[in-house]
Amino acid sequence: MRIAVDVMSGDNPPEELIKGALSAANDFGVEVLLIGASEVVDKYADEDKGIYVKHANTVVTMEDSALSAIKEKDDSSVAVGAMLLKNNEADALVSAGNTGALISAASIRVRRVKGIRRAAIGTVVPLDKPFIIVDAGANPEVLPENLLQFAHMGALYAERVLGIKSPRVGLLSNGTEEIKGTPITKETYGYLKESDLNFVGNVESRDLPAGICDVLVCDGFTGNITLKLIEGMGKFMSRTINSLFRHSIWTKIAYLACKKEIKKLRKRLDAGEYGGAPILGISKPVIKAHGNSDAKSMYNAIRQAKQFAESGIIQEFENRFRRNTANESKDVNSPSAD
Amino acid sequence: MRIAVDVMSGDNPPEELIKGALSAANDFGVEVLLIGASEVVDKYADEDKGIYVKHANTVVTMEDSALSAIKEKDDSSVAVGAMLLKNNEADALVSAGNTGALISAASIRVRRVKGIRRAAIGTVVPLDKPFIIVDAGANPEVLPENLLQFAHMGALYAERVLGIKSPRVGLLSNGTEEIKGTPITKETYGYLKESDLNFVGNVESRDLPAGICDVLVCDGFTGNITLKLIEGMGKFMSRTINSLFRHSIWTKIAYLACKKEIKKLRKRLDAGEYGGAPILGISKPVIKAHGNSDAKSMYNAIRQAKQFAESGIIQEFENRFRRNTANESKDVNSPSAD
Repeated sequence: MRIAVDVMSGDNPPEELIKGALSAANDFGVEVLLIGASEVVDKYADEDKGIYVKHANTVVTMEDSALSAIKEKDDSSVAVGAMLLKNNEADALVSAGNTGALISAASIRVRRVKGIRRAAIGTVVPLDKPFIIVDAGANPEVLPENLLQFAHMGALYAERVLGIKSPRVGLLSNGTEEIKGTPITKETYGYLKESDLNFVGNVESRDLPAGICDVLVCDGFTGNITLKLIEGMGKFMSRTINSLFRHSIWTKIAYLACKKEIKKLRKRLDAGEYGGAPILGISKPVIKAHGNSDAKSMYNAIRQAKQFAESGIIQEFENRFRRNTANESKDVNSPSAD
Repeated sequence: MRIAVDVMSGDNPPEELIKGALSAANDFGVEVLLIGASEVVDKYADEDKGIYVKHANTVVTMEDSALSAIKEKDDSSVAVGAMLLKNNEADALVSAGNTGALISAASIRVRRVKGIRRAAIGTVVPLDKPFIIVDAGANPEVLPENLLQFAHMGALYAERVLGIKSPRVGLLSNGTEEIKGTPITKETYGYLKESDLNFVGNVESRDLPAGICDVLVCDGFTGNITLKLIEGMGKFMSRTINSLFRHSIWTKIAYLACKKEIKKLRKRLDAGEYGGAPILGISKPVIKAHGNSDAKSMYNAIRQAKQFAESGIIQEFENRFRRNTANESKDVNSPSAD
C-alpha cells in the first residue's frame, strides 16, 4: 500500500510532517509518497525503506479558495495528490492543508462514490468514548437525503475503522423529541427511523461528552460549530485546571501529586491524538489532517489512511449507494437493501 | 415593582421556588405575586412583606405543546402569568416551565414589541467572561432580519443589564472569514457590518470560552446546541476533575489542598448562578428560569427580572424598532437611526 502525503500545506514546516511520515512508513508497513518541492522532499527518497517523492511546485494556502487546486494552482501539492489517486499511483492521500481545496480536488479529480451526492468530513472526537461527527464542516447546507447518506457512511466508518459494533447513530437536534429540530432534521428523522441503522433518535449536545451516540449526524455548519466548541472547551478546561493549581503553595504541591493524571487528561483532550478526519464519499481514501499537525499527528493520520484503505468500506459504499441509485424514487428512505 | 412568579411549572416542588421568591422579595425590595394552586400559595400571602398570591388551576407540563397555554390550558400558571402582565397587574413574569408555552403565551397575550418579528431567548453563559446567546432556542429557523434584531436586542441587554460597555457582537459561524457560513448568516453579516453595533465579525465556537464576544448572534437551533454543549462540557469537566483526584492516596490528599479552588470552579460552571434567560422582544419583561431551578436560581431569576424591568430597554426596543418599521424598506440594515 502506498500513501501519498502532502507535506507542504500544513501550518508546520514540511520537515515536521515528513518526520511523522517516515516513522509511519517504518512502523505500519506502508510506502509513503512525499509530495512537495524538489529541494524539500528529494533528500528523503529511499526506495529500500519505501519512501518515494513526487514534485509539486506550488501550495494552496489556507487563504486560497476551495477551487484554487482545480483552477489556478493545478500544480499544487494537494492537486498533485489528487491526480496520484486518480491515476492509481497512490492508494490513499493525506493532507494537512486547506480543507475546501482538498475536498474539491478529491471530488472533481478522484470523483465521489457513485450515488453519493455530497462528500462529508467525518471527524472523530475523543471524549469519554470516541464518536464521529458527520458532517464536521464540508456542507454548511444540506438536504435530508444528504444527512441520510452521512449517517450510513459514518456508521460504516465507525464499525469498520473505529471498531464499534452496531454503532448508535444520533441526529443532532435542539431536543430529544421527534418534533424538535428544523424542517430538514425532522424529515431526516423519518428517513433514519425507517433505515436499518441503529438510530437512537435526536440527541442533544449536552449528552455528547458522556457518549450518547457513536455517529453524530448533522449539517457541516452545526457540526463544525460542535467540533470547535468541544475543542475550545477542552482548552478552557486545561487553562482552568492550570490556574487552579497555581493558586497557592499548597495547590502547587498538590500539583506534583496529580501531575501524571493531569498529563493523561491533557493527552485525552489533545485533538492530535486522532490525527485526522476521513473525507467520506470520495472513491479513494482521503484523510484531512489537522492544519497544525505535528509529526505525531501526521503519523496518526497515516495510520488512519491505512485503516481506511484496508477497511473496504468504500467498496461497501459503492454497493450500497449504487443499489440505492438504481431504485432511487421508491427507495430513498433505505439506501441499504439489506 | 411587582414580579409575578409561576411557582408551579418547574421540575422542583413549588415550595422550593417559593423559598427563593420570598428571599428575593425580602432582599430586592420588590413585591412578588406567587401564581399557583390555592392550597400551595395561599399560606404565604402576606401583604406587609409584599407577598401576594394568584390562583391557577392547571399546569403546562414539559410534554405539553407550545400552544397549550393559549388553547386547552388557559387557566394554567403560565397563562395566568401572561394575563397578569397584559392587565398591568404585574411588571414582570418569571417561569421555570415549558419554554415554548411561556414564549407563545407571552407573544400572544402580552404581545411583542412593535416592529419585532420574533421573540428570542437570550441566555447568559458564565465562562471566563459572561456572554449572551441570542437566540438560545426559540427560533430553529430564522431570516437575516430576525438575526439583526436579535443582535440589537442582545447588545442592549448586555449593555444595560449585564453592564458591558459597547458590547462586542459576534455572528456564530463555521469560520471567521466573511465568506464562511450559510446563505442566511452571510446576508446577516452584511447587515451587521453596516449597523451601528460593535460588530466583531464571524466568530468560531472554539473562541467562545475565552470571551471572543459579549453577544453571540445565531439561530435558535445552533444557539441551543451551543448552550447545551457548553453545559455538557462543564459537567464532563467536573466529572473528569473528580476522577483525577480520586486516583491515589496522594491525589486524595492533594484534593484537600485544592478543595476551595475546586468549589469555586464548580460554582463558575454552575449554570444556576445566572438564574434565567430573558425572552427578548416581548413588550413586558419575561424571564425563563431553568427547568430544574432551585430556590437560589429562582432568587437570581427574580433579581434579573427586576434589573430587566428597571433597565428601560423594552422602551428602547420600541423606539428603535418602531422607527425601523416606519422606514422599513430603505432602513432594514440599520434599525437604530442613531
